[in-house]
Amino acid sequence: MTDMCAPITGSSKVYRDVDGMRVPFRRVELTNGEHLDLYDTSGPYTDPEADIDLSRGLQPRTRVVGDRGTQLQRARAGEVTAEMAFVAAREGIPPEVVRAEVAAGRAVIPANHNHPELEPMIIGKAFSVKVNANIGNSAVTSSMAEEVDKMVWATRWGADTIMDLSTGRDIHLTREWILRNSPVPVGTVPIYQALEKVGGDPTRLTWDVYRDTVVEQCEQGVDYMTVHAGVLLRHIPLTIDRVTGIVSRGGSIMAAWCLAHHTESFLYTHFAELCEILARYDVTFSLGDGLRPGSIADANDEAQFAELRTLGELTKIAKNHGVQVMIEGPGHVPMHKIVENVRLEQELCDDAPFYTLGPLTTDIAPAYDHITSAIGAAMIAQAGTAMLCYVTPKEHLGLPDRKDVKDGVIAYKIAAHAADLAKGHPRAQDRDDALSKARFEFRWHDQFALSLDPDTARDFHDETLPAEPAKSAHFCSMCGPKFCSMRITADLKDSIREAMDAKSAEFAEHGNRVYLPLTS
Amino acid sequence: MTDMCAPITGSSKVYRDVDGMRVPFRRVELTNGEHLDLYDTSGPYTDPEADIDLSRGLQPRTRVVGDRGTQLQRARAGEVTAEMAFVAAREGIPPEVVRAEVAAGRAVIPANHNHPELEPMIIGKAFSVKVNANIGNSAVTSSMAEEVDKMVWATRWGADTIMDLSTGRDIHLTREWILRNSPVPVGTVPIYQALEKVGGDPTRLTWDVYRDTVVEQCEQGVDYMTVHAGVLLRHIPLTIDRVTGIVSRGGSIMAAWCLAHHTESFLYTHFAELCEILARYDVTFSLGDGLRPGSIADANDEAQFAELRTLGELTKIAKNHGVQVMIEGPGHVPMHKIVENVRLEQELCDDAPFYTLGPLTTDIAPAYDHITSAIGAAMIAQAGTAMLCYVTPKEHLGLPDRKDVKDGVIAYKIAAHAADLAKGHPRAQDRDDALSKARFEFRWHDQFALSLDPDTARDFHDETLPAEPAKSAHFCSMCGPKFCSMRITADLKDSIREAMDAKSAEFAEHGNRVYLPLTS
Repeated sequence: MTDMCAPITGSSKVYRDVDGMRVPFRRVELTNGEHLDLYDTSGPYTDPEADIDLSRGLQPRTRVVGDRGTQLQRARAGEVTAEMAFVAAREGIPPEVVRAEVAAGRAVIPANHNHPELEPMIIGKAFSVKVNANIGNSAVTSSMAEEVDKMVWATRWGADTIMDLSTGRDIHLTREWILRNSPVPVGTVPIYQALEKVGGDPTRLTWDVYRDTVVEQCEQGVDYMTVHAGVLLRHIPLTIDRVTGIVSRGGSIMAAWCLAHHTESFLYTHFAELCEILARYDVTFSLGDGLRPGSIADANDEAQFAELRTLGELTKIAKNHGVQVMIEGPGHVPMHKIVENVRLEQELCDDAPFYTLGPLTTDIAPAYDHITSAIGAAMIAQAGTAMLCYVTPKEHLGLPDRKDVKDGVIAYKIAAHAADLAKGHPRAQDRDDALSKARFEFRWHDQFALSLDPDTARDFHDETLPAEPAKSAHFCSMCGPKFCSMRITADLKDSIREAMDAKSAEFAEHGNRVYLPLTS
Repeated sequence: MTDMCAPITGSSKVYRDVDGMRVPFRRVELTNGEHLDLYDTSGPYTDPEADIDLSRGLQPRTRVVGDRGTQLQRARAGEVTAEMAFVAAREGIPPEVVRAEVAAGRAVIPANHNHPELEPMIIGKAFSVKVNANIGNSAVTSSMAEEVDKMVWATRWGADTIMDLSTGRDIHLTREWILRNSPVPVGTVPIYQALEKVGGDPTRLTWDVYRDTVVEQCEQGVDYMTVHAGVLLRHIPLTIDRVTGIVSRGGSIMAAWCLAHHTESFLYTHFAELCEILARYDVTFSLGDGLRPGSIADANDEAQFAELRTLGELTKIAKNHGVQVMIEGPGHVPMHKIVENVRLEQELCDDAPFYTLGPLTTDIAPAYDHITSAIGAAMIAQAGTAMLCYVTPKEHLGLPDRKDVKDGVIAYKIAAHAADLAKGHPRAQDRDDALSKARFEFRWHDQFALSLDPDTARDFHDETLPAEPAKSAHFCSMCGPKFCSMRITADLKDSIREAMDAKSAEFAEHGNRVYLPLTS
């Protein structure tokens, strides 16, 4: 863990006191004396003063209350909870706006009463776009310790939540280690563990086994759960002529169960009971899109939108039970069909936060699907998606390793930030401006420190110009000293000002039209 | 060169005879007996029968005629040239459509009479979106042989044109090697070489030095030239309050010249003479955006659009001289300001093909700017941009090496293809469908062969499941054998059909409403 427990290069951890709570930020100290405080998902792991002991777990945060209902219920009652105050400070948005968005169901704060180790965060289109990183072992590969390592690693680079999608051995214990050490909300797909309990045969699943699994995970502290309750018996034939059928694991498991028993999904028929359980712990629903398209050919088809309509019904039921809800979305979608997904989700699901996987904008680039999907993710987030589930370069090919996790998170931080800029999020452009200013002034260290991945930015620069003086040199290896446009322009600034001053009288005589016709 | 002169894994070179010309395709033979022919930019280098000798250069193509005017002039005269017939076959679009688009100036076929080694290609929004890769050495790094190697490497992965941006020693000779061995059009920025000739001091540039350099490059066979003739004296003060000033090398050189002499740019005042030179060789103008924004803060500002209006004037002059023209575009632009760039370019520049660098949708990810810009590139191409200039991971940090060139090209092939899908290009989705069908049927070899980078896709798969039987296994390491949604769904297909058949009478009785309410 040593290499990932230091502060991020060029940054230090600072806390702001908010009503007795310590709200974390990552402070970038610039060489010109200024500083910029950034949203920080990395938890105590980047705080050299923190006492980290994985076997003990993180310290619980202060002001956790566990017996007073869900954030949704309390927001409706007019209460600004400690969690709301915390996220308001993180986002730079008034607490009352946070409360109103949660009360309306347009935002969720996933925070199981039994996961006091987390630093509260909010998912909603009025706030900065969030990124989820999936981790988890499978029967084929990877160990428990690796998954905890990936969780710390993913949050270091900016993952706002993580999902533990383990399907192999030791599901319960892996999750326990992740939860006790995770500073971000943890999501799961309970059907995976339920299936393990029945020996991997979907037809042997029962409501009882599933319910017990959900209770077990609620008790442990899982913050949100993917539930594929929208895969109905009548939807399944709609997938028959698809190019890639049903590509969601949960979706295909439930489809197999429904067909084998020729009965409606127990997730659907027992949905109200499920709501009662989740409400007790304030676990958030992530209503899964079990029929999401797995290829460009299948995007926006009847199967997908039929399920979305059912998710809309379920959203209302969940909210009536006071349970927070978000809605999962595709998948593989060509660019011209992306916005329609957001429009329909908002219309059918009462503006519940949308949480999408990509979408991938083409099928032809396995090994680069972090890029095919970052394109779709940026566009769907611009259109109103609140959280993006990352896709790594290993998608369709294997399980992500440490490098893949980082590549996936960075690609998605780019997409999320690009969307924040496009949506005009109040503080988003501050970072771009600070970095570009550093770039123009040849403050290389500042440019690195302000970037999403300071280490790689510096390594790339140092490949051709490793010496320290090059860190303040007024050129780089791209153009060399003679051709640097930024240096030439910087040198020009004085000439321009002189010319402008000298000509100003003349301009005035000509009504500013001779020299500057386009600004007058 | 050996490792990059073999066919791409899983593909072989085929030619279609078109009026006595050999039009190349990359044929992917699938294990189910089908095949797919893909657009092929790689030239003879992927043909094992080709006799490659870099010191001799590639064989000239047949039916080259050099004294009959430009493609634009001939298209206007109603002629379908050999080059138009060639690109029509490559694109799968009728020759008459090609002629009409060229005649209208909505598309260009860059093909200098003195570069007979190239395989003709077309740049225009009615055709598949193209990708350019920049190569070239600088004073700080890289050698001549490396640049030829990068050219072959870039076209192997799909670059449709390359630009030689060399600024160091041996500019002429490096370009000669590239031209004689390049199967794709080659672009340059002549001002770079002109500046070398005057010892690197922009103020010593003259029209005579520049003109002689242009003639020298036209004689050599350069197919298109970036000319920053839109940077006018009156535009320069508009950049004074920018965050990143003038970031185009050519733009900053011309700005320095204009200010030093307090005279209008010689590129602008001698533009008609330049047109006469380019027309003689059928060299295409790429009117450079010397004032493109270099940061989010500077996007779509007065300086940028003032220059674009000037480029519109110049486009008309060039077309009146029968010279083909495309227009270069930004740069750094947040997502919500991208479409405006295309709209204005088409309006002001008479629908000349737009050729954009990215744009980068945020400034905060140096080392990942192939991704920040692939997002913008996909969106701007969807809106009508005809060719995308790639950005590599080294952008802002250093010169790209071989790995960076490939990463940049692949990211941009993704963006271009995503745009082709979104624009409904006739053959684009065939490849997605073929790959997704292979994926669903667990034909792993076909999935690799159809992907943009078969080698990396296979390597990633083999990291966890290297054995050959896994190439036809009905699962992968992501979910393991028990949980594979695709396998479950494939197994389900039969059950669904049975259930549907059994229920069909019943459905009919209920007006198809009980079981399939959403398809009726």
